[in-house]
Amino acid sequence: MPKPKWEAKKTYRAIILIQDGVGDRPVPELGGRTPLEVARKPHMDTIALLGATGLMDLIEPGVRPGTDTGHLALFGYDPYKYYPGRGPLEAAGIGVPLRPGDVALRCNIATVEERNGELIVIDRRAGRIRGDHVKILVEALNKAIKEVDGVKIEFYPATEHRVVMVLRGEGLSPKISDSDPGTAMEGHPIRKVVPLDDTEEARRTAEIVNKVVRLAHQVLRNHPLNKERVEKGLLPGNAIITRGAGMIPRDLKPYHEVFKTKAYVVAEEATIVGIARILGMDAEIPPGATATLDTDLDSILESALKAWKQGYEIVYIHVKGPDIAGHDADPHGKIKIIERTDQMLGKLMKQIDLRNTVIALAADHSTPCTVRDHSGDPVPVAIYAPTIRRDHTRKYDEYTCSQGMLGRIRGTDLLKIILDQMNKPLKWGA
Amino acid sequence: MPKPKWEAKKTYRAIILIQDGVGDRPVPELGGRTPLEVARKPHMDTIALLGATGLMDLIEPGVRPGTDTGHLALFGYDPYKYYPGRGPLEAAGIGVPLRPGDVALRCNIATVEERNGELIVIDRRAGRIRGDHVKILVEALNKAIKEVDGVKIEFYPATEHRVVMVLRGEGLSPKISDSDPGTAMEGHPIRKVVPLDDTEEARRTAEIVNKVVRLAHQVLRNHPLNKERVEKGLLPGNAIITRGAGMIPRDLKPYHEVFKTKAYVVAEEATIVGIARILGMDAEIPPGATATLDTDLDSILESALKAWKQGYEIVYIHVKGPDIAGHDADPHGKIKIIERTDQMLGKLMKQIDLRNTVIALAADHSTPCTVRDHSGDPVPVAIYAPTIRRDHTRKYDEYTCSQGMLGRIRGTDLLKIILDQMNKPLKWGA
Repeated sequence: MPKPKWEAKKTYRAIILIQDGVGDRPVPELGGRTPLEVARKPHMDTIALLGATGLMDLIEPGVRPGTDTGHLALFGYDPYKYYPGRGPLEAAGIGVPLRPGDVALRCNIATVEERNGELIVIDRRAGRIRGDHVKILVEALNKAIKEVDGVKIEFYPATEHRVVMVLRGEGLSPKISDSDPGTAMEGHPIRKVVPLDDTEEARRTAEIVNKVVRLAHQVLRNHPLNKERVEKGLLPGNAIITRGAGMIPRDLKPYHEVFKTKAYVVAEEATIVGIARILGMDAEIPPGATATLDTDLDSILESALKAWKQGYEIVYIHVKGPDIAGHDADPHGKIKIIERTDQMLGKLMKQIDLRNTVIALAADHSTPCTVRDHSGDPVPVAIYAPTIRRDHTRKYDEYTCSQGMLGRIRGTDLLKIILDQMNKPLKWGA
Repeated sequence: MPKPKWEAKKTYRAIILIQDGVGDRPVPELGGRTPLEVARKPHMDTIALLGATGLMDLIEPGVRPGTDTGHLALFGYDPYKYYPGRGPLEAAGIGVPLRPGDVALRCNIATVEERNGELIVIDRRAGRIRGDHVKILVEALNKAIKEVDGVKIEFYPATEHRVVMVLRGEGLSPKISDSDPGTAMEGHPIRKVVPLDDTEEARRTAEIVNKVVRLAHQVLRNHPLNKERVEKGLLPGNAIITRGAGMIPRDLKPYHEVFKTKAYVVAEEATIVGIARILGMDAEIPPGATATLDTDLDSILESALKAWKQGYEIVYIHVKGPDIAGHDADPHGKIKIIERTDQMLGKLMKQIDLRNTVIALAADHSTPCTVRDHSGDPVPVAIYAPTIRRDHTRKYDEYTCSQGMLGRIRGTDLLKIILDQMNKPLKWGA
């Protein structure tokens, strides 16, 4: 048997560029074309030319993904199975180290008045109470409420009037209702938290949260800071109201364990960094990454290249701008950030060895300018790999990619296909 | 209403040709083409021309199938649900008649030494003990160990030093660890088998296997054959070590019951014949089928035609060569076996009535020459049927089929599509 002229079964590393919300629909003022069709983006088109393309439904056809569920899928986790809910995402976003089984809730510091033994919500945000005041009140809560019914309670200040509450212990459930009555219901009482399913865990968790809400009011109503605020004519932050209870699924295994691969995430948003950390991935928001059309793409590239040089096998790069432009119905802004991202991609491609690297172009969802919100339209995908089956497509846009060889795939397929092209496939059988 | 000129809803029979590992990636020394693109294969291309084509992920996109899981899917069974594990496959491969609920394990006859009450593994294969010696020792085991804790125990000699052990009874589980410490751990004790989940069944099964391992040593250590072996300077086969416990799923229904169709499998490998038998299908390895590039394809064809004449409604024909060539990074060998298989297909097509026959071309996975192993790349599929929607594709290869009308399907879809083209569909609803 002659010796092959190539090195067989070499493994490669991968870079995955995620343009948030880049998929679009025909835009009237672009003559019915999409921003991706109009943008000058020679490097993205090179990936399409040298690789294979397709369309991808992040969740399933027609289902509109959030940035959170879209990224869960891009990280290889089925959002229907592993979406932890808003509470844990907010917690992870501010750096709270959560563990499987923990229940986290989003809370507000609010203003309430006691009437006939009920706590009436006067202002859901305590007059948009400042972060430094929230910090002081959270300190008091943590000091006074450490444990309820054998479950550990922790409070963390989040942005502005927001607080994250974490319940840690055995036998908890995220299936509970909100105590926050919602904006339309100001003037009504704090709602009693009730179990949302028929389990002992949900009943117990609801009871604990109700106790914490009552205890928190007792701690806060007499706090010196609130007396000061009232004297100054400000609303007192004398209660917490809770919503969005969620739990890190107990069977969630970290990314490096599931995919046997070490990945780094460079993202412009705390939510994405939070998800990455929940999955046990290393992640950062680079300096100068503003999640706007003017973001510092050179800084983002620098962070990505640093991780690459450190040897991470997969580096995710997230650019937020296209989504912002979609929400703002700003097709020209979308074209511009796509073109700037393409230049970043060009610089990246000069600094890595393309003979040993897989590059994938993806998105977490479409944000069509005519919708001004996320849509369920599939996103274009292009994968270059040193030994991939190249198809005949030569452009990275919604129409061209629909003709590509990858066909129509799902969000969770992408990582598996990339791992297979890295020659690090997931094996099933013998 | 005028009477139609054709006989409506006639049912057809089908032949499914499985080229093991035939899918590939661009091969440098073929100018970036794949073996299927280069091979002269007029008959396969005729199937593509007269039928419809597509790409197929045997399990899911990017996931690398084994020959076993790939064939389970081709036989219409979801591998994630019905993969029985290595033990039952080895058992079925040597013709052990297994039933749902049976636990089967792969065993070695090994050499151990007793030290401080522990059995230290000196040689995992008892010096590669010969098959005729294994047969004698297995006879002794079967005579001495018939039942443990109400569970029937059976031993079967397999190839060389290997033995299959079957546990038959109520309340068993395959979720147990191996007693075989593995090649790297020779010189260490036989491992205690432990339950791998928190069920009574797993605990019980682990305990039974531990008892059998101890009993087997008692039976074998004083066996006259082992005294003879030691006198001759050979290592005694004085223990069995176990691994790969698996169970035929209790809800596994036979093929003819699930698909209301009688199928015959002509295959080059014991594993595939074993799977077919587990599913209750008739199967054989034809004489002269060597599972190499020089295999006797005329003999394979003869076996297939014999089954066809006997009236089987579906005949599977498996050719192993393309997979071997892929593992050997031998694209020219792969081209040659594809071309020889095409000639066999030509002879077949001359001997059957194409007006009444469905012919499908498929594979159990890709084995790219540049990977030298199975990959997660989808395989090309072509289906000819007398009344199928013909698409515009005219060749059977990875690129052309990606443009076909079947799109990107899953492994378990194929049989359903074929049954539908046979006008024997699985009905759902009324």
